[in-house]
Amino acid sequence: MKLVTFAVGDREAVGLIDPTDEVTVFDLGPVLGERSLLEVIEDWDRLAPRIAAVHDLPRIARPTLRAPMPMPRRDLFAVGKNYREHVAEFGRSGYDTPQRSEDLPAKPIVFSKATTSVTGPYDDVEAHPSVTAELDYEAELAVIIGRGGRGISYDQAPEHVWGYTIVNDVTARDVQRDHKQWLLGKSLDTHAPMGPWAVTADEVGDVTALEVSSTVNGEPRQKAPVADLIFDIPELIRVISAGMTLLPGDVIATGTPAGVGIGFEPPRFLQPGDVVECAITGLGAIRNTVR
Amino acid sequence: MKLVTFAVGDREAVGLIDPTDEVTVFDLGPVLGERSLLEVIEDWDRLAPRIAAVHDLPRIARPTLRAPMPMPRRDLFAVGKNYREHVAEFGRSGYDTPQRSEDLPAKPIVFSKATTSVTGPYDDVEAHPSVTAELDYEAELAVIIGRGGRGISYDQAPEHVWGYTIVNDVTARDVQRDHKQWLLGKSLDTHAPMGPWAVTADEVGDVTALEVSSTVNGEPRQKAPVADLIFDIPELIRVISAGMTLLPGDVIATGTPAGVGIGFEPPRFLQPGDVVECAITGLGAIRNTVR
Repeated sequence: MKLVTFAVGDREAVGLIDPTDEVTVFDLGPVLGERSLLEVIEDWDRLAPRIAAVHDLPRIARPTLRAPMPMPRRDLFAVGKNYREHVAEFGRSGYDTPQRSEDLPAKPIVFSKATTSVTGPYDDVEAHPSVTAELDYEAELAVIIGRGGRGISYDQAPEHVWGYTIVNDVTARDVQRDHKQWLLGKSLDTHAPMGPWAVTADEVGDVTALEVSSTVNGEPRQKAPVADLIFDIPELIRVISAGMTLLPGDVIATGTPAGVGIGFEPPRFLQPGDVVECAITGLGAIRNTVR
Repeated sequence: MKLVTFAVGDREAVGLIDPTDEVTVFDLGPVLGERSLLEVIEDWDRLAPRIAAVHDLPRIARPTLRAPMPMPRRDLFAVGKNYREHVAEFGRSGYDTPQRSEDLPAKPIVFSKATTSVTGPYDDVEAHPSVTAELDYEAELAVIIGRGGRGISYDQAPEHVWGYTIVNDVTARDVQRDHKQWLLGKSLDTHAPMGPWAVTADEVGDVTALEVSSTVNGEPRQKAPVADLIFDIPELIRVISAGMTLLPGDVIATGTPAGVGIGFEPPRFLQPGDVVECAITGLGAIRNTVR
């Protein structure tokens, strides 16, 4: 299933995207009521059969899509330096302070993006000119946790994945570098566009076969298969949950491939008016204009 | 006012601590109903006069105190290397990878602690022996945001402070070091004991006059006035809110003074059975046993 959070007037609700045109939404209100997608995921085992069984849902033509979870229950987890070629470009750029290293990380580098950075799949990304002069994009596959837990093993991890979505891990490179820890540089308002859909794991099948890509103003920038992850999804879930309880609805952005702005010499930062599109096979595409 | 979140049986509610004995709680249920402290803070301007006016509240003798906000709306903000002497001890320890520097940070180092790390003021801290062999304590003053906002100026910042509490920013040093970004090493379950009270800013008065201290098994370890902060509270609020909207109920742990376990040569890590007490003038003390 491909679920969306959509808005019509003041109402925000959960729906299914019509697979035939990918813009029409079937309103799941008759079966889910006022539930948010987070609440649906928390009660998935009970609700999934009801969603699968329902028919004759109201059709809504091109409603505004919100992020699948417009206000997550806590900050997003995100992973740094998790594609080989990106590690090299980040190391060469000098932004990975204080060392300038192209060594692969020995363990996953996990940080967070504040809830308030989340925005919709087609919403504008704010340039924040008073805070940053070095705005960059990072197309990423994001995992949505279904069943929570702690001490999840590598082999059990797939059972804890509810599904997937796309996140652009927008980054203020100067802020990321100057504050050493990455939270602030990763968390400016609107710097986590997400969506367009939340796609269930069964619909995706072999996630390692998906391809993550991005363009800026139509020009190809990033492109890599999920199979290229240094730390794969089960390993990330194992490591993060080793001493921390994962919760239903937690989002883990798994890292970005090579081709970001600081990978160029000189760097190619985003400017107001630029349109960034991040796409993943089978998960659709998000497209955001810098304002 | 000194507010608490307490539990009696299955009920969790907000109360006032009796200032005469600091263990009896006045149950605010008659005026606040089922509201959590987060909801009270969100509606503070309307509710504060009602709380101030109420009398003849039910008295509850020594109920179990929870963290003031047992499940915050998002991860806690926390600040690294924000006391001069602690910067020096952290630099000497070699844990501030990859460089071994005693230089003061030029800008605040801000990271987060996951919501699931929060635990009560007298609850046990889990040792997590399968994840870490290097458990450390960090007594910290935590600011609780009242009115949210973005682009808050230094001068306006005090108007956005609802109050204060104590956080022990428990840290798995090996995990903190090995994963480069600090989120995982700072976020193991039970590694953010908080409380015992949430004290309103008007009750505290001059926050820079407060003294932060800690003991381990009764032995003094940390002690410094809040006036020693490198980046003071208005500056932290200014920097964090520059491009990120702060929300009512957000918690900012402001950093820890010198005297943590890695400040000793050799390091003195916490062991099961150790009792850590973190105290701040006027805010009480939290006391947690490592299990």
